Amino acid sequence: MKINNIPYCTIWATNDGAVEIIDQTRLPHEFVTVRLETMRDAEYAIRSMQVRGAPLIGVTAAYGVALSMKHHATDAALKATCDMLAKARPTAVNLAWAIERMRAFLSPLPVEQRAEAAWLEAGRIADQDVQINQAIGQHGLQIIRAIHQAKQGTVNILTHCNAGWLATVDWGTALAPVYAAVEAGIPLHVWVDETRPRNQGASLTAWELAQHGVPHTVIVDNAGGHLMQHGRVDLAIVGTDRVTATGDVCNKIGTYLKALAAFDNGVPFYVAMPISTLDWNLRDGVQEIPIEEREQEEVTHLSGLCDDGHIRRVQLTPSGSPAANFGFDVTPARLVTGLITERGLVSANAEAILAALAD
Amino acid sequence: MKINNIPYCTIWATNDGAVEIIDQTRLPHEFVTVRLETMRDAEYAIRSMQVRGAPLIGVTAAYGVALSMKHHATDAALKATCDMLAKARPTAVNLAWAIERMRAFLSPLPVEQRAEAAWLEAGRIADQDVQINQAIGQHGLQIIRAIHQAKQGTVNILTHCNAGWLATVDWGTALAPVYAAVEAGIPLHVWVDETRPRNQGASLTAWELAQHGVPHTVIVDNAGGHLMQHGRVDLAIVGTDRVTATGDVCNKIGTYLKALAAFDNGVPFYVAMPISTLDWNLRDGVQEIPIEEREQEEVTHLSGLCDDGHIRRVQLTPSGSPAANFGFDVTPARLVTGLITERGLVSANAEAILAALAD
Repeated sequence: MKINNIPYCTIWATNDGAVEIIDQTRLPHEFVTVRLETMRDAEYAIRSMQVRGAPLIGVTAAYGVALSMKHHATDAALKATCDMLAKARPTAVNLAWAIERMRAFLSPLPVEQRAEAAWLEAGRIADQDVQINQAIGQHGLQIIRAIHQAKQGTVNILTHCNAGWLATVDWGTALAPVYAAVEAGIPLHVWVDETRPRNQGASLTAWELAQHGVPHTVIVDNAGGHLMQHGRVDLAIVGTDRVTATGDVCNKIGTYLKALAAFDNGVPFYVAMPISTLDWNLRDGVQEIPIEEREQEEVTHLSGLCDDGHIRRVQLTPSGSPAANFGFDVTPARLVTGLITERGLVSANAEAILAALAD
Repeated sequence: MKINNIPYCTIWATNDGAVEIIDQTRLPHEFVTVRLETMRDAEYAIRSMQVRGAPLIGVTAAYGVALSMKHHATDAALKATCDMLAKARPTAVNLAWAIERMRAFLSPLPVEQRAEAAWLEAGRIADQDVQINQAIGQHGLQIIRAIHQAKQGTVNILTHCNAGWLATVDWGTALAPVYAAVEAGIPLHVWVDETRPRNQGASLTAWELAQHGVPHTVIVDNAGGHLMQHGRVDLAIVGTDRVTATGDVCNKIGTYLKALAAFDNGVPFYVAMPISTLDWNLRDGVQEIPIEEREQEEVTHLSGLCDDGHIRRVQLTPSGSPAANFGFDVTPARLVTGLITERGLVSANAEAILAALAD
């Protein structure tokens, strides 16, 4: 997608065998790219959250393996590289998946072929992410087009957190249908939940939509219900970190509240979901999915841009007040209108998921 | 209630004919009181939100009239005073009510009696606010006690925004039952929604609970649904700005989302409501109550305490992204378990409200 009218991906190989990324910790106030030359650079980029979003973390790790293989491609080096990268964000399922794919692909190869092969395989993982997201975009486009045709006016879409192109290599998951609809010339407007506590909506989603020229408005997480009550949301699309075999959706904290409001007001609520997000082992999302509790400081403190141009962190709460910080919640399948996958739209129930997505 | 173990009200008359308030714009990072000596001081305190919360605004305006009458008590002075104070926060219903009560009380009196009478009447308005809130506290206490007896453990209460003693003269509305339960020795814990965009929960509710020694935890507004799904909320109590004759509840933006989650999880959802909040003219809250749209900057910027001890304002969003800021939303009566009034618990429907609250 575009930044200041120039097409970008979140990660790309350079002509001279390095990798470049957008430093997402500096957004939305500064646009800075970072050059990764070693596996340690890639590991740091993941650990420090210069890159974030499950697909992008996976691709960065794959390139990290490739950067390492250029220098040392023995079995021992491959194992050490994979072990180190896997620890950069221990809970990221996609990170482990990408590393294991690289390891399984490279292990059988002769040592002298591994550097070249690793580079190509990392590129394939990146390309496949783009293809998956493009497919999600095209399937989601049909939903937006149908609403546009019925309404004959601007389609208002609410999204939560950042499941945009910044979370992937390109297109995004929840925002892929938005970008596809913009390309198709459908007039639309996005309500962007700021998404406390880490404010990925206010900082990342708003930034990427603004850069690509997509009309949008930032709202606090409290506002979605009011907008839906007054007919100002035509559909909601969110991403997900994990979907159960029964269609329960784990996503950023607060998704459940927006889904409740959508259901209460007859607003379609879609989840954009690469099939890799499906966890066939789980049946009851609320009971079975462990919810990460993160540090209090993400609730009690917040960073932003001061008038003097400096980024500063401010404390919001009184010093004597503890905070709790739950990273995700689970939206029961009964509140989900449908899952937008790269294979098409799937109903959020066990039978439909099994029929459409089992290999 | 207590601040650092010393009992306080939010507003009090001094021995020498002035009025003192807590400057709530400095909370939670600084505790500062301000002396009001003239009507203009009172007007400024209301306009600059040194005092906020409908009951407290009303009492401050009443004292503003009294401060004015000490110097000029003619009909012209009374009218000019009332007109000026009424403009300090044009949308505050309680402000208009308190000023009209003062005007109607003072107008028939001889000019030379007005100063003394105004002072006494302002004090009566303040005292009545305390009595109303104490009564709400005692009625709400019965609900908390029943839950405690059934559960035989700590009662977890979720609240949104600040409807605590800082919004009134003392006790608060939504938090009056909490303070009454603490006095009664019932073990409880309060989940405090931070309440974006103005963060009255994180700054005011957390501060007043901490100062009074009430166990509490600050959460982002996105978290309440997750907590309710996991049985970690026994009841919710919120305040209100306006209740329709049918029981629809207008309150701080985001209240509706929490009420939906409470309903979905069988968590009792109560609204603490002085009877003066009832608007007999309205039947359909969602359609009929106008929702104030406030300035974008409350969403795009936020103030807090920097490490260097300065209060600073930071920008959260990219400069190119607009924001929308809706002050309130409406929770339909069907989601409200009950209204806690100074006359007791009332069901949120037209028949019950008419039977219990019509004079």
